[in-house]
Amino acid sequence: MAQTKQERDQALIDDLVTANHILASEGIVDGYGHVSVRDSRNPNHYFLSRSLAPGLVTAADIIEYDLDSNPIGDTRTGYKERFIHGEIYKVRPEVMAIVHDHSPAVIPFSVSSVHLRAVAHMAAFIGDGVPVFEIRDVDGMTDMLISNPKRGQALAKLLGDHPAALMRGHGAAVVGATVKEAVGRAYYLDLNAKLQEQAMLLGGKVTYFEPEEARKTAPQDGYERAWDVWKRKAAIK
Amino acid sequence: MAQTKQERDQALIDDLVTANHILASEGIVDGYGHVSVRDSRNPNHYFLSRSLAPGLVTAADIIEYDLDSNPIGDTRTGYKERFIHGEIYKVRPEVMAIVHDHSPAVIPFSVSSVHLRAVAHMAAFIGDGVPVFEIRDVDGMTDMLISNPKRGQALAKLLGDHPAALMRGHGAAVVGATVKEAVGRAYYLDLNAKLQEQAMLLGGKVTYFEPEEARKTAPQDGYERAWDVWKRKAAIK
Amino acid sequence: MAQTKQERDQALIDDLVTANHILASEGIVDGYGHVSVRDSRNPNHYFLSRSLAPGLVTAADIIEYDLDSNPIGDTRTGYKERFIHGEIYKVRPEVMAIVHDHSPAVIPFSVSSVHLRAVAHMAAFIGDGVPVFEIRDVDGMTDMLISNPKRGQALAKLLGDHPAALMRGHGAAVVGATVKEAVGRAYYLDLNAKLQEQAMLLGGKVTYFEPEEARKTAPQDGYERAWDVWKRKAAIK
Amino acid sequence: MAQTKQERDQALIDDLVTANHILASEGIVDGYGHVSVRDSRNPNHYFLSRSLAPGLVTAADIIEYDLDSNPIGDTRTGYKERFIHGEIYKVRPEVMAIVHDHSPAVIPFSVSSVHLRAVAHMAAFIGDGVPVFEIRDVDGMTDMLISNPKRGQALAKLLGDHPAALMRGHGAAVVGATVKEAVGRAYYLDLNAKLQEQAMLLGGKVTYFEPEEARKTAPQDGYERAWDVWKRKAAIK
Repeated sequence: MAQTKQERDQALIDDLVTANHILASEGIVDGYGHVSVRDSRNPNHYFLSRSLAPGLVTAADIIEYDLDSNPIGDTRTGYKERFIHGEIYKVRPEVMAIVHDHSPAVIPFSVSSVHLRAVAHMAAFIGDGVPVFEIRDVDGMTDMLISNPKRGQALAKLLGDHPAALMRGHGAAVVGATVKEAVGRAYYLDLNAKLQEQAMLLGGKVTYFEPEEARKTAPQDGYERAWDVWKRKAAIK
Repeated sequence: MAQTKQERDQALIDDLVTANHILASEGIVDGYGHVSVRDSRNPNHYFLSRSLAPGLVTAADIIEYDLDSNPIGDTRTGYKERFIHGEIYKVRPEVMAIVHDHSPAVIPFSVSSVHLRAVAHMAAFIGDGVPVFEIRDVDGMTDMLISNPKRGQALAKLLGDHPAALMRGHGAAVVGATVKEAVGRAYYLDLNAKLQEQAMLLGGKVTYFEPEEARKTAPQDGYERAWDVWKRKAAIK
Repeated sequence: MAQTKQERDQALIDDLVTANHILASEGIVDGYGHVSVRDSRNPNHYFLSRSLAPGLVTAADIIEYDLDSNPIGDTRTGYKERFIHGEIYKVRPEVMAIVHDHSPAVIPFSVSSVHLRAVAHMAAFIGDGVPVFEIRDVDGMTDMLISNPKRGQALAKLLGDHPAALMRGHGAAVVGATVKEAVGRAYYLDLNAKLQEQAMLLGGKVTYFEPEEARKTAPQDGYERAWDVWKRKAAIK
Repeated sequence: MAQTKQERDQALIDDLVTANHILASEGIVDGYGHVSVRDSRNPNHYFLSRSLAPGLVTAADIIEYDLDSNPIGDTRTGYKERFIHGEIYKVRPEVMAIVHDHSPAVIPFSVSSVHLRAVAHMAAFIGDGVPVFEIRDVDGMTDMLISNPKRGQALAKLLGDHPAALMRGHGAAVVGATVKEAVGRAYYLDLNAKLQEQAMLLGGKVTYFEPEEARKTAPQDGYERAWDVWKRKAAIK
C-alpha cells in the first residue's frame, strides 16, 4: 500500500521537488528528463513525479514506485522511462537518487567516438570516463527509450560502479548518494563536457585528471553549497 | 467573409498566440519569423498574425487567410512571406501548423555543404536530413524572401513529405500535425543542429540515427509535455 | 548655445535612450560602448550620453555635441571615444545614428585574417565584407582608443561608404539612417559573425551572399518590427 | 581581536557583498568561488565570506582574517581555499582585492598547452599571458584545492607580478587594486578567453596585442562604469 502523504518523508519529497526545479532552471532538463529519490524509509521503493515537465513538478505530483517500477496505489500516467530508476536502484544499493537528462553538452559525447574525461575539479567524479550506452546492442532498432525492464537492466549493468552513463543520441543517467549529489553531478557532467570540448578545440595538448587525482578530488561537499544558490535561483524564475 | 471573433475556434487561436510567445521566449524567433495554424473548421483557411514581432502577438492581431494567402476581410499589413504558409497548406493536407524561423543553429547548416542529420532522439523526425531551399534555383538574384506564390510553391515542392526545409542564408520552414508539434519540431531542429555541430567538432566518428531508428523514435507525444513548461516560461517573461 | 530640454526633439531623445537599453539588454554592449543620434533639427550637432553604462542611461544624461565633439553647454564627463561619432557624422551626411560596441562575436573577426561576410539575410547589409580598422597604421602603439580627432578621422575614412567598420582588438562602429537601423545593424552584425563562424566550423563549403543578392536583400524595414519587441524586453529587464 | 561591525569600513564591506553578487549574476562564479578585500584600515587583515555560495553572501557573512588566513574572533566555517587570499596579500602589498573563480571560458586554457593572450582591449591587462599553476609541481597527487599555506604560497609565487594566474583543471586567481578592478579583471579574463578561442577557431592568423600596446591600454577606469550596471543587474536578479 502506498504511504499517505502524512507518512512520507516530507523533507525528502521537498528536496525532490526542488531538484526538479533546479534541473529546469539550470538548463540540465528542458520539458523532458526526470529525477528520482529512493524512499529513506523503505529502500525497495522510490519517488518520481508523474509524467510532467520537471519545471512544473509539485509534491502532489510525486508517485511512489517499487523497484520493478510499478506505481503504488496510483493510477496517474508515469514517465515511460521510469525503468532507468528502478533497475539502477536494484543493483546499486548505495545510490539514493538518480537524474535522467538530455543535457546539451553531454549529447555530443554520447554520439562521438571521443570520450568524456575529467578536465575540471568540480567534475572529478568523471575520472577517466563514463560508459556510453548503445541501445542497439540490447534491442536492435528501437525508439531509443528505456521503456521496459530489459532495457533498464542493460543500462544498469553498463553503468556498473560509475557515477553516470551516457546514452547514445539521448542523454545521461547520473546517480548520487543524495538528491543534491545526483543533481550536482548532472550539472557538472554537462559543464565538464562543454569545457572539455572547448579545451580540445584549442588544438594543443589537453591535460586530463590523473586517476589518483580524480579519486582524491571527487569527494566534494555533496554540492551542498551550490544547492543553496541553485534553489534560490529556481525559486525566482 | 471572415469569421467573427465569436465564430473562430478560440482554443486554436489561443494556442497560436501561445506558440508565438514560446518561440520568442525560447529564442527560436527574434523580432522576425512567424507561426500559423490551419483553421480547424475550414481547411482552406489559415490563421497568422499581422506583421508583428511574435513576442508581441495577441489574439486581436490574428488574420484569417485563404490558401492563396489573401486576407479575409482584413486590411492590416500582413507578413510578406505568408506564402510560405499558404502554399505548404495547399500541398500538405495533413499539415495543420507551420513555423517559419531564423533560428541561430539552423542557419549555419543552411549555408554549408554539410547536411543536418538526427543526432538526438527528441529530433529524430529529422531522420537522415531535410532539404535545403536554394532560392537562386527558382528566381536567380532575389531579396531572399518568399514574398510571392511562385517562391512559396517552389519551397513547398522542395519540402515534399519532409517535416522541415532549411532556406539558404535565411532560416527554416517547419510543419506539424498540431501547433504544438510544429513548435516542438522548430525547437528541436535548432537544438539538434547545435548538438550535431558540437559532435562533429570533437573530431571523432559521429553516430547518426539509422533510418529505422529515426522512424521508430520520431513519434513523440507531440511535444505536449514540453509545451506546458514552455508556456509557463513565456508567461513569466 | 545648447538647446533646452524643451527645445530638443523629444521623440529622438526617447529613441536614443531606448537604443541604449536595447543594446544592453540584447548583449551588444556591456558596461561600455555607446550610441548617438544626429540632431534632427541641426545636422551639425549630435546627441550622446555622458560617460555612463548604456543600460543606465536616461534622457537627463544626454549631452549635445557639435561635430568636433565639443559638448554644448555641458560640463559633465563625456565618453573618451565620442570622436567616433563626430568624425563619422562629418563625412557621412546621410548617417543619422551610430553605435560603437564591443559585441562578443565581432571581436574575433577584428583580430583574425578571416573576413566577416554576409551569411544571413537579416545581415545582408554586410555584403562581401566590412573594413577592419588597424590603429597601428594611424598612430603606432596606442591605448587602442579613438580618443582624439585624428583617430576618429582615420576611422571615418576607412569606414567610407560601408555600413560598419570593425576595430582590431576592440569592437565595431555601425551606422544607420535611423537609430533603429543602427541598433538593428549592430545586433545582426554580431549575429552574422556568430553564424559565419559556426558555418565555417562545419568544415564544408560555405555559400555567402552574392553581391547582387546582398544589395537586393539589404533594404529591410529599418528593423522596426524587431525594435518593438526589443524595447519591451529591455523594459522588463 | 576582531573589529566590531561598527568598526569595520562599511563601504568596503558593502562593495565586497556587491562583488559577490555581481560575480554570481555575471556567471563568473556559480555555487563556488570567492572574493576577498584587504582591510583598508589594517593591511594585515582581509575580509572574506564564510563558506557560502557568492550569490547568497550578506554583510553578516563576512569574516575577518589575518594573512595566515586565521579567522579573527569567528568560529564559523570558512572557505577551504582561503589561503589563496592570505598568501597573495602577503607578497603583493599593492593588491587590495582577490577573486578566485572557476569561470567557464578560462578552464579550457588552464588544461591546454595553448596560452591565453590579450585579444580585446578591455582585457589588455593580460598582455602576452598569465601563468598556469600546476599543483602537481608542488604537491604531487592532490585534491586540487589550495587548502593549506604551502599551496597558497606556491600559487602566490607563480603569480608573481601578474594580474592573474590560471589554475590547471580548476580556475583562476585574479587580483586588483580595488574590489572593482579585481571583479572587472575576472570578468574580462573570462571574456577574452572566449574571444581568443573563437578567433583561433576561424583558422586564420590572429593578431594579439603587442606588449607596448597592452601596457598602454591596460590602465582603464578600474571598471567603475561597468560596476554600476553590473550592480543594478545583480540587484534585479
